[in-house]
Order: sequence, then structure tokens, then C-alpha cells
Amino acid sequence: MAHDIRIVTETELRGAVRLDLTAVNVIERAFAALASGRVVMPPILSMELAEANGEVDVKTAYIPGFDGFAIKVSPGFFDNPKLGLPSLNGLMILFSAKTGLVQAVFLDNGYLTDIRTAAAGAVAARHLAPEVVETAGVIGTGVQARLQMQAAHLVRPFKRVLVHGRDAEKAAACAGDLARSLGIPAEVAPDAAGMVAQSQLVVTTTPAREPVLMADWLHPGLHVTAMGSDQIGKTEIEPEALVRADAYVCDRVSQCEVSGELEAALAAGLWTRGTPAELGEVIAGKRSGRQAPEDITIADLTGTGAQDTAIASHVMQTIGDMGTLIRA
Amino acid sequence: MAHDIRIVTETELRGAVRLDLTAVNVIERAFAALASGRVVMPPILSMELAEANGEVDVKTAYIPGFDGFAIKVSPGFFDNPKLGLPSLNGLMILFSAKTGLVQAVFLDNGYLTDIRTAAAGAVAARHLAPEVVETAGVIGTGVQARLQMQAAHLVRPFKRVLVHGRDAEKAAACAGDLARSLGIPAEVAPDAAGMVAQSQLVVTTTPAREPVLMADWLHPGLHVTAMGSDQIGKTEIEPEALVRADAYVCDRVSQCEVSGELEAALAAGLWTRGTPAELGEVIAGKRSGRQAPEDITIADLTGTGAQDTAIASHVMQTIGDMGTLIRA
Repeated sequence: MAHDIRIVTETELRGAVRLDLTAVNVIERAFAALASGRVVMPPILSMELAEANGEVDVKTAYIPGFDGFAIKVSPGFFDNPKLGLPSLNGLMILFSAKTGLVQAVFLDNGYLTDIRTAAAGAVAARHLAPEVVETAGVIGTGVQARLQMQAAHLVRPFKRVLVHGRDAEKAAACAGDLARSLGIPAEVAPDAAGMVAQSQLVVTTTPAREPVLMADWLHPGLHVTAMGSDQIGKTEIEPEALVRADAYVCDRVSQCEVSGELEAALAAGLWTRGTPAELGEVIAGKRSGRQAPEDITIADLTGTGAQDTAIASHVMQTIGDMGTLIRA
Repeated sequence: MAHDIRIVTETELRGAVRLDLTAVNVIERAFAALASGRVVMPPILSMELAEANGEVDVKTAYIPGFDGFAIKVSPGFFDNPKLGLPSLNGLMILFSAKTGLVQAVFLDNGYLTDIRTAAAGAVAARHLAPEVVETAGVIGTGVQARLQMQAAHLVRPFKRVLVHGRDAEKAAACAGDLARSLGIPAEVAPDAAGMVAQSQLVVTTTPAREPVLMADWLHPGLHVTAMGSDQIGKTEIEPEALVRADAYVCDRVSQCEVSGELEAALAAGLWTRGTPAELGEVIAGKRSGRQAPEDITIADLTGTGAQDTAIASHVMQTIGDMGTLIRA
């Protein structure tokens, strides 16, 4: 029995779906649902294509109360820049959670992942950062460096932003973009330690395999979100920092154990505090996050299928009659 | 960087892609590649949506020598018939194996799965059935009952076909369809044991959870393909039959252990012959299949991502400029 399927391109999606509080609230709802125990979120399907220096991940989740569920396919082919192509691509498919019928195909080339990833940073900041953030800092100078600061600014309207990156030119470009988009002073911080010292909120957005933020840099009243590590072997935060923090919070413990900051801390035998809290549990009030302004908090975001289902559902409600209808 | 993505509907696919020897040969090539050890085929991603009596499976595989790899999403929502909708749906996405870019979206509602599943039956028959098959039998009366007999007939042009099903009307309809499509006599066989006794090739195509083909029915010169079991708890062949056969061959051992006929045989402690052969190993001559006309052989097909990659690649080469191009 044929039905209409909506095909929406990246250009159309960029015109219709923005990183705003509505998107943040949808992602927050997905995290809260994760804490309910009723979300079904299978392990990520991951395939390596070594001959092409490529990999592909598939994520999904069913969230009760959402009409649909998304399946997201994220290829990463790291020789693409040599061909003038971006490394990351992919699409999301939205299915009816009642019938399994395909509702929409979002040919987003990773745009919706960018949005839902940044929105998770805002959710972490909303529930873990100190109430007052004067200065925010970001380590990394890519798309997520920009989006994470924009997202955090939605929930903690800081007055100044600092950018640290290994490449001074890219850091300057990122700072310039942030100054324009946020309308606040943005500066390059050549020294990461000094930047963290001046900030109440820091987001790390790198693919680092060695820590870029050290335990000794932690100071009272600091919140750190580490969102770069999403694979085995990646790490951004010195493992010792996780136990020095008053609260270390995972997006999903089962993922952080294998691909987040927890991986290295467990391997080093440093983590001895039992099962860490999850962001959804903090939102739902089941576990404690920040308890005092001087607390040090760390959020570890590896990216969940629940976010994909949430953003795809949000898109479907947002786009109206956008896209091309295909009857199939 | 935008590029063209081809969107093809089920109707278009049905017009362009047929169950023929070309399709069988492509699937055979995928199985042969599986035996090379260079195929990357991750475990199936599976998610249950208990509240909707639904499930969704995602399969993929990278096959060296194929320009693309497919990701197939197969939802099964078993209350759909109450809504006048089919239980099974889904789509395949073809990606470039060099860049990860989406090449095509096949909105096939499971049609390509039907074809590649039947083609695997033909590959099994080609390599395991006796050279001469006069009579073929099928247990089950659904889409695969028809397609499996059509596929087997491509490689073993039998003179007569027998159909056994629990529902006499459905068996008669299936026999009628097969008589028309194959142009040979087709009869309903009310007694499964009697049907197997008369057949040199039998395919079981049921979702049974109790055996529908018993070990005592095996006779010299019989080949059986069991293709219905694809999930934990499903079984079509009495476990004892696997050890009585001269050759028991899996499409993929790691899948047959958990969701094929091997599952029950292992659970009952009956299987003591070490790692079974895989169909690809038989094709490649690495393991033996049928060695004499009087041998008894069993093929256990659970369905592999390699078949999906192979059929999707075949479709892309077959369809020419069919479908709708979307620039994304």
C-alpha cells in the first residue's frame, strides 16, 4: 500500500531547523525519557571500511511518547578532503513508531547531528553549569566549537567567549564567527590552562586522543562538557579530573564506558565511584548534579540515538510541507 | 558539497529488477566474497518496539570489489494487518564505498529483500541440491514460497512442484500461481512427510517455532533449504536432522547459531561437528557440500547484509536513469 514519503535536503533543513530553545527542549525531553527506563536504545552498529579509511555508524532509539523513531546513518570517510569532499555525511530516516512505515528521509549530510549534538551541550549546561556564567571557553575551532557556544549561550547568556585551538588562524576565525553570531566579545586564548581559569563553562570539541584539559586546571564553580570523544581511544579530559569533579555525568553510561571519557578512567583504575549518573537522571531529579555554585561538574557526551529520534521528530513537526513527496 | 541522490520507489523497482539468473549470480558473488574473510559484516542492529508489537532490524556489509555498500532497514509491525497495512516494510540505502556519500535510496517496502532472499535459495540449490531435481516441494504458502520455487527453478529446472501449507486455500492459491509462473504442474500436498518423500529439493519458508520438517523424513538425494528462521526461537527443521545430513551449510555461522536452525541443535547438545561450513566456503571450494547424488544436504539461510549490499549494487547497475534525482 503506497504512502507519501517526504524527502528533505540539507539546504531545506538548514532553512527550516535552527539551533534554538525549542530544539534544546526537545533534546532535553529525550534525555529525560532515557532516565525513565522505557526508552529502547540498541548498541550502535559500527562498520569499518579500512580500505577507504572510512567508517559508518548507525544509531536509533525508540522513545515512548514520540510518534516516530529515527535511524541515523553517519559515514565518516577521512580521505574525502583529498577529493574536495567533506569527511562526514549521512542521513536520517524517520519511521512511524506505530506502523514502521517510512515517514521521511532527511538528506542532511550531518546537519541534524550537528544541531542535536549542540543541543545536548545546552541541556548539560542548563542542568550542570553554575547559574551565572560570565565567561565561556571552547577548546577546538570547528563546527561544534561554534555550535556548542551558541547552544550554551541560549541557556547561560555569558558576556564573553574564549576560543583555544592548536591552529591560531582557525581559532581567530572561530572567535570572529562567535562574536558575530552571539554579539559579544570573543577572543583567542593561546593558553588552554589560562582560558579554563577565566571560564565558568568550558566545552571541549576535539577528536583528541590525548587529554586537552587537565585535572589540575579544574577550579571551583567550573562546568566542563566534553563532547568530542565518541570512539574507543578518543579522550579529551585527563582521567583524574573525573574523580576530582563533584559530579561526573554521562549522556549514556554504557556508551561513555567504551567511547567516552570514562573509558580511560576505567582503564587506569581511577573510577571507583560506582555507576555514574546519566544526564537524564539529573534532569529527572533521580541523581544529583551540581549542588552548590562552587561545585565542579563534568558532562561526558558521546551522542545517543535518542537525540536522533528527538531531532527527527522535531524536524517533522517544523518543516510543514517542505521537501519532495515521493509516493512509495 | 551537494550531489545527486537517486530515489526509487517500489513500483519502479518491481518494473526494473527481477528474480533472474543475473540477480542469482550477484548474490552468489556476495557469498563467495564472504568466504574470503575480507567482507566486513557487523552484527545485525535489532530494536524491539514492544508497545507497537513491532521490531526493526538494520543490516549492512562491505564487500571488497563492490563500489557501494547498502544499509537496509527492515521494520516488522505485526499489528499492521489490522490497519490494512502490510507487516513488513522498509528501505535500502546505497552508499559509495569510496566516499560514504549516499548514492540512492530504494523505497522498496521489502521487495529487494524478497529478491535477494530468494536468490540465496537459488545459490544454495545450485551448490547443494542434486544435479537432477524432478520434483521440488515447498512448505509455506506466502511470498517466499512462490519466490523460492521460482529461484530454485532457475538453477534446477524441475518438472513438478508440490506445495504444503496449513491453510488448504492458501496452498491451492500458491500452487496455482506457481503453475502459471513456472509453466509446470503444481499440486497441493496435504501431507508434508509425503511431499518430502516425493521431492529431491524442499524449501521451508515458514515463521515456525516448532519443526515443520522432521529428521525421519530425510531420504537419500534430498536437499533442504530452511529460510524461514531468522530470529531467536524460530525453527523449521527438527534439530536431529542437522546431524543426520551429510552436509549442513550455514549462510553465516554466527547468525545461524543465534537465529537459525543451529540454535536449537546447539541448545539440545546435538551439534558436535565443530564449526559448520558456510555457503560461501562451499562456493569457493574451501569446504565440501554435496559429494554424491545420494547425499542429504541442508542449507540454513538467515539472511545476510552481504546480500543486501549485493542486490542494491545490482539494482544501481540495472535501473539506468529510473527514479527521482534529488540534489542534496
